[in-house]
Amino acid sequence: MALFSRNEYLKRITDTKTAMDKKGIQILVVCDPANMNYLTGYDGWSFYVPQAVLVIDDQEEPLWIGRNMDVNGAKHTAFIKEENMIGYSDDYVQSDIKHPMNFVADTIKEKGWTDKSVGVETDAYYYTARSDKELRKTLGKDVLDGNLLVNWVRIVKSDAEIDLMNQAGKIAEKVMSTALDNLAVGTRECDAVASVYQAQISGLSDFGGDYPAIVPMMPTGDKTSAPHLTWTDDPYQNSQTVNLELAGCRNRYHCPIARTAFIGTPPEKLQTLADITVEGLNITLDGIKPGMKGEDVELIWREHIAKKGFEKESRIGYSMGLNYPPDWGEHTASLRPGDKTILKPNMTFHMILGMWMDNFGFECSESFRVTETGVKTFASFERKLFVI
Amino acid sequence: MALFSRNEYLKRITDTKTAMDKKGIQILVVCDPANMNYLTGYDGWSFYVPQAVLVIDDQEEPLWIGRNMDVNGAKHTAFIKEENMIGYSDDYVQSDIKHPMNFVADTIKEKGWTDKSVGVETDAYYYTARSDKELRKTLGKDVLDGNLLVNWVRIVKSDAEIDLMNQAGKIAEKVMSTALDNLAVGTRECDAVASVYQAQISGLSDFGGDYPAIVPMMPTGDKTSAPHLTWTDDPYQNSQTVNLELAGCRNRYHCPIARTAFIGTPPEKLQTLADITVEGLNITLDGIKPGMKGEDVELIWREHIAKKGFEKESRIGYSMGLNYPPDWGEHTASLRPGDKTILKPNMTFHMILGMWMDNFGFECSESFRVTETGVKTFASFERKLFVI
Repeated sequence: MALFSRNEYLKRITDTKTAMDKKGIQILVVCDPANMNYLTGYDGWSFYVPQAVLVIDDQEEPLWIGRNMDVNGAKHTAFIKEENMIGYSDDYVQSDIKHPMNFVADTIKEKGWTDKSVGVETDAYYYTARSDKELRKTLGKDVLDGNLLVNWVRIVKSDAEIDLMNQAGKIAEKVMSTALDNLAVGTRECDAVASVYQAQISGLSDFGGDYPAIVPMMPTGDKTSAPHLTWTDDPYQNSQTVNLELAGCRNRYHCPIARTAFIGTPPEKLQTLADITVEGLNITLDGIKPGMKGEDVELIWREHIAKKGFEKESRIGYSMGLNYPPDWGEHTASLRPGDKTILKPNMTFHMILGMWMDNFGFECSESFRVTETGVKTFASFERKLFVI
Repeated sequence: MALFSRNEYLKRITDTKTAMDKKGIQILVVCDPANMNYLTGYDGWSFYVPQAVLVIDDQEEPLWIGRNMDVNGAKHTAFIKEENMIGYSDDYVQSDIKHPMNFVADTIKEKGWTDKSVGVETDAYYYTARSDKELRKTLGKDVLDGNLLVNWVRIVKSDAEIDLMNQAGKIAEKVMSTALDNLAVGTRECDAVASVYQAQISGLSDFGGDYPAIVPMMPTGDKTSAPHLTWTDDPYQNSQTVNLELAGCRNRYHCPIARTAFIGTPPEKLQTLADITVEGLNITLDGIKPGMKGEDVELIWREHIAKKGFEKESRIGYSMGLNYPPDWGEHTASLRPGDKTILKPNMTFHMILGMWMDNFGFECSESFRVTETGVKTFASFERKLFVI
């Protein structure tokens, strides 16, 4: 059964069609798994083969097209009628000769939609160069750019989506406290991360967790300057900073959360940096109001740290929510100079403030929604330098 | 520090250049994260932004090109000289105007390699339609298809790679026994999966685990017919089958393993199906010899089950090893009709035998390497229907 009401899905589809119309797109081929989920409810780890949801200007429901063996998964999770779920045979999978996008294009032709203009998500992770080429080849015509079109529809969340993000926030609190509880001199990084994973997936007694779109990042020592390295077997050592970039996830909705810990007695300069950063986080969150632009939010932060004698960070946050690996960001609005997105209630952001000096650093973040009057964070977790 | 010796990386690069030469490719732009790792050692969760390794016909070392903030990660993990690590600035990230592939093409021009032919991995997950378009635009010329070129070089593993896969096999044993220990009537699916994750990441006392490229799959009840749905909060129930599709992972090298459990007293027909399948697995593994083709292996299995009155499965295995989400398969050789790949020592496969009836099913798998005389599995775990 799909997670949201039929009416909610139909509203999302209507909003998508409105955006399509502005770009002259009559059929949008959606391959981003988060967008496929958003428009139909479909949720499965099947995006390692090409699959698509087609939004058609004059059809109420979209078409789901995937591998035959995944049609049952669509029946379990998508709101659409079974007649709108179409499977392709396994000889399309990992073949030199046939490609699932030939099947998608053939479906468009068989439905008699040859004259409709087709849009695609040109920069979606799983829409490869070959996908695009095979689709155009079988269609016999060029396609329009519908990149990020659905992502922009997703930017304002429904109350039902906010409920899930609040649950993700509760899981995030448990995840972060688990991480802090498991940091100790001599504990292997892999063992601390394993405890974090356990907390992420188990969730709470009222509701379980889902896999976040990004693995837990808990670098320490000189690896804190390499933000995307994953864990090793090395034990945590005394007198080292540990960055904790984690998340709670509920039904694919995320609440990222970052904190910094120090194992041992922190140097005074780190404590000072932490105090300035946390003060900046508080001031920036307090300053956000609907109607501001993304760039206005960043300015609050930049002016705060300038007063303290520090340089600005160029981007301090981004829109996020529903997603799949490899990223929980929505790739739409950012909190950075030049971003003209006007903040509206139920837009949801992860604001992450990182201050990196030559050989030490501190970061702290909050995930929040914009409200009618300000912001509300999804998790409630102390903002400070944690000393282990 | 890179995981393998400089000589091992240089051999991989030489083999890649040989394959490039056959296709007339002088520069190969490698965007598949597993191939980037294979050729340089680079290992980071940074593939959510475009990045590439360039193999150039007349250069000993490849170039690594990624986001500025990931250059430190390259220094930590790649074997190449720092001068061969090139970072692009953050204004290339998620921008309408600039794209990292413009930077890659500009780098090729700046190096004076304008006349060299360029190949790309047309169907690699993270090589999007836009990546391809931007690269061609800035190069000012078309590109050749180098899809799966490095994947085919990867198919025969070195002894050092086999060592890591043996370690992954040991982790897989622990992971599977953890899964079986945590199945019980009333246990929520998310809690059982959480324990599995914990085991995957913690690994063993001698060596820790890495995140597998596919999440744990433990469907039960009618969800066993939807193979790619992930877990829910529902409790496991009595008299139900549970499919366990899991893996151990060590330094990005995988050992997938699948087993089937029944909670309660299994129906006789399921036990019979399990016995036939396990017998077929044993016979097929015993029958594999180097020099056979992929299709010959499948034939052993198909003839076995035909004698028992069952239909064939079309694909019973695939080459695998080093990988990143969303798939641990290498997308090269398959054990299926028509596959002409000649098996050689140190090729590594996951053979997964699934028998699906109308309302019940059984699956069992082994990951193995081809040896000089037969096969050797990476994990050692009883092959049977597990009764909980």
